[in-house]
Amino acid sequence: MKDTVFLAELPWPEAAKRIAAGAPVFLPLGATEQHGRHMAMNVDVVIPTAIAEKVAGQVGGLVAPPIAYGNRSQPRTGGGPAFSGTINITAHTFSLLVKDVICDLYRQKVRRIVVLNGHYENIGPAIEGIELALDALGRDRVGDLTILRIDHWELVRPETLAKVFPDGYPGIELEHASVIETSMMLALRPDLVDLGKALHDGPAQFRPYDRYPRPAEEVPPSGVLSLTEGSSAEKGRWLLADCETRIAEIVKSEFF
Amino acid sequence: MKDTVFLAELPWPEAAKRIAAGAPVFLPLGATEQHGRHMAMNVDVVIPTAIAEKVAGQVGGLVAPPIAYGNRSQPRTGGGPAFSGTINITAHTFSLLVKDVICDLYRQKVRRIVVLNGHYENIGPAIEGIELALDALGRDRVGDLTILRIDHWELVRPETLAKVFPDGYPGIELEHASVIETSMMLALRPDLVDLGKALHDGPAQFRPYDRYPRPAEEVPPSGVLSLTEGSSAEKGRWLLADCETRIAEIVKSEFF
Amino acid sequence: MKDTVFLAELPWPEAAKRIAAGAPVFLPLGATEQHGRHMAMNVDVVIPTAIAEKVAGQVGGLVAPPIAYGNRSQPRTGGGPAFSGTINITAHTFSLLVKDVICDLYRQKVRRIVVLNGHYENIGPAIEGIELALDALGRDRVGDLTILRIDHWELVRPETLAKVFPDGYPGIELEHASVIETSMMLALRPDLVDLGKALHDGPAQFRPYDRYPRPAEEVPPSGVLSLTEGSSAEKGRWLLADCETRIAEIVKSEFF
Amino acid sequence: MKDTVFLAELPWPEAAKRIAAGAPVFLPLGATEQHGRHMAMNVDVVIPTAIAEKVAGQVGGLVAPPIAYGNRSQPRTGGGPAFSGTINITAHTFSLLVKDVICDLYRQKVRRIVVLNGHYENIGPAIEGIELALDALGRDRVGDLTILRIDHWELVRPETLAKVFPDGYPGIELEHASVIETSMMLALRPDLVDLGKALHDGPAQFRPYDRYPRPAEEVPPSGVLSLTEGSSAEKGRWLLADCETRIAEIVKSEFF
Amino acid sequence: MKDTVFLAELPWPEAAKRIAAGAPVFLPLGATEQHGRHMAMNVDVVIPTAIAEKVAGQVGGLVAPPIAYGNRSQPRTGGGPAFSGTINITAHTFSLLVKDVICDLYRQKVRRIVVLNGHYENIGPAIEGIELALDALGRDRVGDLTILRIDHWELVRPETLAKVFPDGYPGIELEHASVIETSMMLALRPDLVDLGKALHDGPAQFRPYDRYPRPAEEVPPSGVLSLTEGSSAEKGRWLLADCETRIAEIVKSEFF
Amino acid sequence: MKDTVFLAELPWPEAAKRIAAGAPVFLPLGATEQHGRHMAMNVDVVIPTAIAEKVAGQVGGLVAPPIAYGNRSQPRTGGGPAFSGTINITAHTFSLLVKDVICDLYRQKVRRIVVLNGHYENIGPAIEGIELALDALGRDRVGDLTILRIDHWELVRPETLAKVFPDGYPGIELEHASVIETSMMLALRPDLVDLGKALHDGPAQFRPYDRYPRPAEEVPPSGVLSLTEGSSAEKGRWLLADCETRIAEIVKSEFF
Repeated sequence: MKDTVFLAELPWPEAAKRIAAGAPVFLPLGATEQHGRHMAMNVDVVIPTAIAEKVAGQVGGLVAPPIAYGNRSQPRTGGGPAFSGTINITAHTFSLLVKDVICDLYRQKVRRIVVLNGHYENIGPAIEGIELALDALGRDRVGDLTILRIDHWELVRPETLAKVFPDGYPGIELEHASVIETSMMLALRPDLVDLGKALHDGPAQFRPYDRYPRPAEEVPPSGVLSLTEGSSAEKGRWLLADCETRIAEIVKSEFF
Repeated sequence: MKDTVFLAELPWPEAAKRIAAGAPVFLPLGATEQHGRHMAMNVDVVIPTAIAEKVAGQVGGLVAPPIAYGNRSQPRTGGGPAFSGTINITAHTFSLLVKDVICDLYRQKVRRIVVLNGHYENIGPAIEGIELALDALGRDRVGDLTILRIDHWELVRPETLAKVFPDGYPGIELEHASVIETSMMLALRPDLVDLGKALHDGPAQFRPYDRYPRPAEEVPPSGVLSLTEGSSAEKGRWLLADCETRIAEIVKSEFF
Repeated sequence: MKDTVFLAELPWPEAAKRIAAGAPVFLPLGATEQHGRHMAMNVDVVIPTAIAEKVAGQVGGLVAPPIAYGNRSQPRTGGGPAFSGTINITAHTFSLLVKDVICDLYRQKVRRIVVLNGHYENIGPAIEGIELALDALGRDRVGDLTILRIDHWELVRPETLAKVFPDGYPGIELEHASVIETSMMLALRPDLVDLGKALHDGPAQFRPYDRYPRPAEEVPPSGVLSLTEGSSAEKGRWLLADCETRIAEIVKSEFF
Repeated sequence: MKDTVFLAELPWPEAAKRIAAGAPVFLPLGATEQHGRHMAMNVDVVIPTAIAEKVAGQVGGLVAPPIAYGNRSQPRTGGGPAFSGTINITAHTFSLLVKDVICDLYRQKVRRIVVLNGHYENIGPAIEGIELALDALGRDRVGDLTILRIDHWELVRPETLAKVFPDGYPGIELEHASVIETSMMLALRPDLVDLGKALHDGPAQFRPYDRYPRPAEEVPPSGVLSLTEGSSAEKGRWLLADCETRIAEIVKSEFF
Repeated sequence: MKDTVFLAELPWPEAAKRIAAGAPVFLPLGATEQHGRHMAMNVDVVIPTAIAEKVAGQVGGLVAPPIAYGNRSQPRTGGGPAFSGTINITAHTFSLLVKDVICDLYRQKVRRIVVLNGHYENIGPAIEGIELALDALGRDRVGDLTILRIDHWELVRPETLAKVFPDGYPGIELEHASVIETSMMLALRPDLVDLGKALHDGPAQFRPYDRYPRPAEEVPPSGVLSLTEGSSAEKGRWLLADCETRIAEIVKSEFF
Repeated sequence: MKDTVFLAELPWPEAAKRIAAGAPVFLPLGATEQHGRHMAMNVDVVIPTAIAEKVAGQVGGLVAPPIAYGNRSQPRTGGGPAFSGTINITAHTFSLLVKDVICDLYRQKVRRIVVLNGHYENIGPAIEGIELALDALGRDRVGDLTILRIDHWELVRPETLAKVFPDGYPGIELEHASVIETSMMLALRPDLVDLGKALHDGPAQFRPYDRYPRPAEEVPPSGVLSLTEGSSAEKGRWLLADCETRIAEIVKSEFF
């Protein structure tokens, strides 16, 4: 059988052996969400899973199956629910799923967990899921458990951003389906990107508040919140390298 | 970009187009669960996803991201929680996830949904998830919605079973990680099977009841409930062909 | 006051005495569900309660009040919700009820619990209720607790089935409101059966999948999934004797 | 088959006929709770069920299966959880159960429901269950539905109380397992009462507040909050007659 | 900074110091609910908060932020939902809020909690919230925690009632927005009362049952269930003094 | 009675009149959370409530009772749970509370709601609460409802920030209990601030990820994440003026 870091691709005795040896388990959190006319909707799954795979390979870790359904997309951060194909999950369901997985990993003696997130709207419910798991397990009874929660975009170095955005970094707020994600996807899954279909109708100009149930019509028709111009596979490799290197360092310093 | 039936691999405008054209959406339900010493733990995800992919290709359908975490494995049907790597989700979380996905597909104007299940313990919570979605949407307000719920193993023809089991079909009850699943995996993902590691310690002899919290020690050490002897990729292709052909017929007759 | 095994018919000091003596507590799970034109709708309550009463009398046990509302009836296993009188409870509510009762029995020092089920659709939520109770109580803190979960129909011996079905046993799948249940009711509560009203419109021919929200019209008009012909009180006594004898053996071997 | 007002003792066609004719459905809410050394623990089930049976017979109604597990017994109103045999259900579970039953009765075209309660601590969660059902059904969509919620002890006439308590009525607050309930049980189920076992250790003197998790030790050892002296079957018949007569009047005036 | 007993008005080091010193924490439970044409809708918040403030000052206690949204107002006890401005919260939400606050106070080493309630419909869900907190914390693990639950109106002495109601006390049942609450508000917040606007259309004559979803039209148009005539600030001071004195005594005797 | 925009300080007929006139209702969301050694813990309640009061006065609006318990404080955004006095509520409870209030305001014919948030960790659960309310009400049935969700700190103009931070704006990330909040509190409630107690131990240097259950020890001992130096009541007035002006504009443009 093939050698792999993906937990679900192993037979159970191999999983048991690695868990017993203290393998950190990475849990990628993603979404099925529009990412512009030029990219597939699995961007938020592909990126953290690929980073987790790379780092797990370096630190003797395992990658649990990614959660492919994300918490409700919002207009100002992901375009919102108006785009066909974006599948929204409630925060409560998402949190319970994270909680259940963590609790069951703990039951299996996993003591080092890295929750690696690729979807902005998952941040809150992922934290809640972790907290609910700790509530259920009993904070005073899990002295040997450590959970790290990482949003991959937080790990890109300023110098890399400077190279990726020679005209100045527009800020993470609008980076949905824009240069960072597009470049990473070009590096990881060029078959899921077609830059020729990009509409270049950004960046969005958002009002500083949310409106429900009918959001203001401010999301660019393409669904891209900022810009796609200037995306490249090479930039993607720079960005991914930052994330991979930094997470490997974090995991080593926290767990070993 | 590549042509695909996987919803999450499409850009949203293509998803929108296919949904508008009435594409049925397949939702594969799986698990991360031990399947013996000789197979990976993603069997219950791989099989329904592969069947869904094939049928979707034939009927102009789409395949939503599979749910890779299944409801609690039980000793008599999946070996139970004692095996490292089996990740158990509560029935309530699983049902809410199914409910959320269905409700959001409906919101997007999807009116033909096929819930295709590969994990025995998912049956009840999948039904509940569908019922909860109907409760939430309002049964009297979804006159144009049809949801089919299929367990793939129900679609194998008796004549195929006779060919697969020349010495007599032992019954579906113990078929966990046994000839049917092993053969299908040999056909679909031979890289995730190593028959040389099979322990041949089945079939299990179960008492006709469940015991908690310490189940009777009746699950064979390998985790295989019946037998792996006699598995082959050829048999797997026969079995898959039955499922694919039958589901395509069902979808055509129910939806078109 | 009368001597009884029914917990709720005792004054509390007597209950306290028996619990302190280690009495196993039986919790019958039933439903209010159509069982054909010829039988009352409490079949799934009457049968497990009667069995529990008999066995409790033999092993010094107690019978807790039966749960008379069952999880959602499905067309292929109970006729479904289309029949007036069938009252459907969600899986979550049912599980919480089972969980609450078990947790409170545990609090009262009951350490031997037999969950005895009479309704097919209760299987999943009953398991979930037990698992939720164990989650709440803490699996590592209930070392002295044992819960058995039994579906009574699993305990009928093959030789009895051969006698009951001289022309061959059609299988448990369609046994809803058919010979087994009808015979047991004729033995237990003949006042709730009128064979003269049976429609003999079975057996059902079901497609191998479920359809929502409008099930296929395959349930026989009577609601009986198989056959009522050949039912008799004598057969009922044979069937009940099997269940009673076997459960008494199980309880003795597991608990004493 | 026997003639009965108990819904679950009817075959479904008979239930269908009566529901179509507009039969009010009574839902008795009870508990499994200590009621002194001299009575069984099913008092809160027996009394409202008996009243419902009588009134249903007079008004062409049906009696749904009673809910035999009540919301958490509290020291000042039912003795609290310290007594073996009292089985406590959470308010949320109890409310969901009431909600589910009402929603499903509505789905079956029942439009006249009487929730008849026999357990003090059920009042709040019964109201919540009804409100949750209305929330779920949509208050603006159930114009033809009427639900009455009755605590049976509210219907005893002052002149009856004067006869029952010739020395003055001590008030409903402490009437748990005391003269009113004991007399009613003597009238309904004398086999479940043994006045000779009454301890006569009341009435309780309660502080005007609750203490958790260790209640003040104020509940009389017997569990009787007031007095049993003076209970008689005759008084029970007077009290039951009041309830039955008054509920019949209410039902007629509200529904017909 | 000002000296205060209000927890949220302290900087954290001062809160830490007082908690470490064993300060009891008062949690006032109120509502936003109609209280007649002559009073503001925050009566159920103002009264228990004022009492808590006074008692906390006497016993070295702290007052946590009051819960200003109460469980669903009912016609017979608060006028019901028909009055604009009454904001109803479900019992489940209310209970979870009480539970969360208690659990987090416990985590912070608070071991003496007084839940002081001012809204009738909160009684059940407040008990449930306390019980849920104990379920979550583990009753056997909180040996040093004591929670008192007090409805302030239970603490008025009979002799005070005799003075307040020289013509006889009509009973607590109808005291919503009537002499007791009006007098207390006149004493505490005369700016929120205008007796000139009272309608004097009470007392209500209620049927002894509830009707849903359309309650009987028995609530007086003003929303006052009994009488406002005879209210005065002086009576309010008598009533408050009773509550304050008695709660201070209770707290001292239970905690010190 | 006093004139006020606070809904709960009005008698119900006045509330009814204003709601009928289309008054927007402001719902302030806050927290009870440490804000350094120099400030009270109600900062996140005081600020949005004061802004809401001011704006409501300008636009004919009402202010509903603030929610004083916020979602779980996190180390990187509020110092986390280690500080005595911070009271953490789960995301689910917080969302349900927001949902319940919105649903009940809608039931009362309120159609213009402004959810004004003062606590960072509330953002996600506030969005979820709004979405849950819309799910419950039915998005297709609330065509006349508009909900605005505003974080007050998003409305400060860049030119004001330039004046407040003459040495450069450090960014909103660390602004917990720092110059912005401290200045606003100095303007609004100087009695709850004592700059002399500030520790000046910031700004925090956070790692770009979260760790559970034991966060990295990076929160400054004071609990202030950035700096307090340079705070002043004047700056507070500038900041508040920006928020008030901008929200008034938003409300007018969206609602009138």
